[in-house]
Amino acid sequence: MEMTRRAVCPGSFDPPTLGHLDIFTRASAIFDEVVVAVGVNPSKSKRLFTADERMEMLTDLTAPLGNVRVKGFTGLVTDFCVEIDAQAIVKGLRGAPDLEYEAPMAQMNAHMTRVETVFLLNDPRWAAVSSSLIKEMATFGGDVSAFLPPDVLARLTKRLAERSE
Amino acid sequence: MEMTRRAVCPGSFDPPTLGHLDIFTRASAIFDEVVVAVGVNPSKSKRLFTADERMEMLTDLTAPLGNVRVKGFTGLVTDFCVEIDAQAIVKGLRGAPDLEYEAPMAQMNAHMTRVETVFLLNDPRWAAVSSSLIKEMATFGGDVSAFLPPDVLARLTKRLAERSE
Amino acid sequence: MEMTRRAVCPGSFDPPTLGHLDIFTRASAIFDEVVVAVGVNPSKSKRLFTADERMEMLTDLTAPLGNVRVKGFTGLVTDFCVEIDAQAIVKGLRGAPDLEYEAPMAQMNAHMTRVETVFLLNDPRWAAVSSSLIKEMATFGGDVSAFLPPDVLARLTKRLAERSE
Amino acid sequence: MEMTRRAVCPGSFDPPTLGHLDIFTRASAIFDEVVVAVGVNPSKSKRLFTADERMEMLTDLTAPLGNVRVKGFTGLVTDFCVEIDAQAIVKGLRGAPDLEYEAPMAQMNAHMTRVETVFLLNDPRWAAVSSSLIKEMATFGGDVSAFLPPDVLARLTKRLAERSE
Amino acid sequence: MEMTRRAVCPGSFDPPTLGHLDIFTRASAIFDEVVVAVGVNPSKSKRLFTADERMEMLTDLTAPLGNVRVKGFTGLVTDFCVEIDAQAIVKGLRGAPDLEYEAPMAQMNAHMTRVETVFLLNDPRWAAVSSSLIKEMATFGGDVSAFLPPDVLARLTKRLAERSE
Amino acid sequence: MEMTRRAVCPGSFDPPTLGHLDIFTRASAIFDEVVVAVGVNPSKSKRLFTADERMEMLTDLTAPLGNVRVKGFTGLVTDFCVEIDAQAIVKGLRGAPDLEYEAPMAQMNAHMTRVETVFLLNDPRWAAVSSSLIKEMATFGGDVSAFLPPDVLARLTKRLAERSE
Repeated sequence: MEMTRRAVCPGSFDPPTLGHLDIFTRASAIFDEVVVAVGVNPSKSKRLFTADERMEMLTDLTAPLGNVRVKGFTGLVTDFCVEIDAQAIVKGLRGAPDLEYEAPMAQMNAHMTRVETVFLLNDPRWAAVSSSLIKEMATFGGDVSAFLPPDVLARLTKRLAERSE
Repeated sequence: MEMTRRAVCPGSFDPPTLGHLDIFTRASAIFDEVVVAVGVNPSKSKRLFTADERMEMLTDLTAPLGNVRVKGFTGLVTDFCVEIDAQAIVKGLRGAPDLEYEAPMAQMNAHMTRVETVFLLNDPRWAAVSSSLIKEMATFGGDVSAFLPPDVLARLTKRLAERSE
Repeated sequence: MEMTRRAVCPGSFDPPTLGHLDIFTRASAIFDEVVVAVGVNPSKSKRLFTADERMEMLTDLTAPLGNVRVKGFTGLVTDFCVEIDAQAIVKGLRGAPDLEYEAPMAQMNAHMTRVETVFLLNDPRWAAVSSSLIKEMATFGGDVSAFLPPDVLARLTKRLAERSE
Repeated sequence: MEMTRRAVCPGSFDPPTLGHLDIFTRASAIFDEVVVAVGVNPSKSKRLFTADERMEMLTDLTAPLGNVRVKGFTGLVTDFCVEIDAQAIVKGLRGAPDLEYEAPMAQMNAHMTRVETVFLLNDPRWAAVSSSLIKEMATFGGDVSAFLPPDVLARLTKRLAERSE
Repeated sequence: MEMTRRAVCPGSFDPPTLGHLDIFTRASAIFDEVVVAVGVNPSKSKRLFTADERMEMLTDLTAPLGNVRVKGFTGLVTDFCVEIDAQAIVKGLRGAPDLEYEAPMAQMNAHMTRVETVFLLNDPRWAAVSSSLIKEMATFGGDVSAFLPPDVLARLTKRLAERSE
Repeated sequence: MEMTRRAVCPGSFDPPTLGHLDIFTRASAIFDEVVVAVGVNPSKSKRLFTADERMEMLTDLTAPLGNVRVKGFTGLVTDFCVEIDAQAIVKGLRGAPDLEYEAPMAQMNAHMTRVETVFLLNDPRWAAVSSSLIKEMATFGGDVSAFLPPDVLARLTKRLAERSE
């Protein structure tokens, strides 16, 4: 039964937050290898950061963890899991509403493949943190420095300044 | 990073159900080894089955899975995890209320130790199944055969008959 | 398909409230006949009112509705439904927590028999009303007159006075 | 009180799923007649199937039930209920979030008319099934055959192939 | 510690409902002064009523309360609170889903400033009432008179008639 | 409208936690005066600390806040509010389940008196903290030092040691 235990953390990470990093860190302590899978969907053109930018930020962010890789993917996350031989998808939960949102997808994934979805509870410090809320607050000048890694904060500030020019 | 990935499934399992078996099976596909940890708390005298009986049923039930062991424990489950060198506690969720019930304990455990709590969504077929509801229904003559392994059903039927004599 | 459409409203009704009456009234508009089924469980000795008292109050309360009968029952409510040829159990929901509490029982009932559980949303005016909360408030001298039929209020006041003597 | 007990199952059914069929079947066992009411809203142009196509699929699907009719409607579902003399709207619930979504509409409907909304709990097997999630999964090549009637699956596959040409 | 206790009730109020008025009334009994803060966001062009119209309706509606003022604001509500020296934001909750929606924003606000978010439970009579549902129902000819102040109802009826011309 | 704005924080506080202190602190910033009301119910004999001990701990804990008093009460909390001329009851919410538990009581209180219940969201750091869970963890030797004020921790450790002798 000793094989490489591999998990996938899928998301758009636009941008990555300390809440995401919390989940990557904890997944990396449970599994032999963690693959952060960045959704590269050409039809979703509203992203603030390109897929390359997001993957670059994530690679820098997860480098210290040692057993985390960053890859882009398109299509179904379960297909991606099968392709890279991962047994599990890891999802962070900030609370019950997240579970209610994720459950149908997890159940459909479990039906279609053997890939399990594993849920980790976010540290409560990140219960309020989502990429979309952070972008909204930052757009109106809110101070979101407590929720982002320094490099991501710098890039976000720069990008929003470019946008409002 | 290649080490033995070990998880603990704690519970009282009075009696074990097909919902429990669902979680053991799925955990055994994710981790190298799964330890079913049976709460052996002398103060909780209201159990229908003794700890030995529950461990016997669980051992039979999980034998086909190959990488599952059954052990009794007392005290804090996190202490037990540290003792047997397990990285994670696995809990099955039938839905959001289960998460809301488990979250404070999981967060307190995460605070006290490095042991992570990992949640798996139960197959919806077992969404209605709990040991306590099964005991209640069976006491009133309800047919609970769809929710229990055959051997457990036989033991439950026998035990309830003894009780009502 | 034209047969007598019959539904059962089970409960302990200790005592019946305006919230219960709301559900009886609405069920009586949907079904040809509604049977209020009063749990007569000898082991639950903590009731404030005897089964006979509760059935008497309920009979008075539902008399104006015309197509509602009151009966006592023991054992499984699904067995009672089969016995009186009812197609459905009707449960009032004050909100999502009620559904989460009722769902496992409803699913197990659906598994064991052909009897459906039908949920009606309580009028929001009764969202705060439960027999147990009313008894607790009244014990401490709270004014619960808005939530009980006048006759039930009189009986409750009398009973609590007897108890505290 | 013996009158025709008639219920309406409203929806867009784009496309109908086995979860929908589960609710139609159970409603048809409780009521004398069930009318599946297909929302025919000209402004919602994003449907995958036309109203005629959806009504055709639903008619085929419900034919074996005997007491189910399929009709299109526009405007308020309560007006439609009054028009066809139905006492109740039937809604399937996959869980508490569905109830939270439906409750305000049900309460407003109850306020405006005498039409009751009756909730049935979906069989847990269909807890993950929604038309929108199925369309999303199928678009990315996911296997959704377990959640759709064969004829609907064939039409969906064909339609998605036409779209991607 | 005796200072002017001031609270802000932010929203778009398109249009104001009796549910909003319920919260204003209750907030005005707790605080020395309540400021109804109307979101004046130029990018949200889909409003049915202009900011001026909404502020006019709100001013009329809250006049009898004595200690309520109406003001427009842009940007972050916390910045607005600091600007007018308010200690608290008041939000009405119709139930748990509202809390789940509001919590991340409240926690982020608490992080960024000293402004507290205070939640009041709506009277259950208004549990079904939201500006958006009211607009939707009214558009289809539904009777929403029970949920709106008379003047607001008149304006809404007039506006919808203009729109459909 | 400038009057003394007074709020009551009721509870059993057996023992007080940093989560309770979080709420006292935030309430004290919103109101002119906060009264911590300690339930002194003779029938609840299972308390770990006597009412006097709890009041002593709370008095020490809230002394730095300046505008907080500690008082015992029996009976209905709304009666106590009227007696001390408080406009509001303040309750901390760790999440939606807390609201669902508190809502019926809040609505009944609002019905019986003019006293409002005001909810504050606990800092997420204390989302896992309850007196009962802390007592349970500490009994089994868990490290709960992060969730209790130092003096309370010392008293709890001492009391549990006495108990297990």
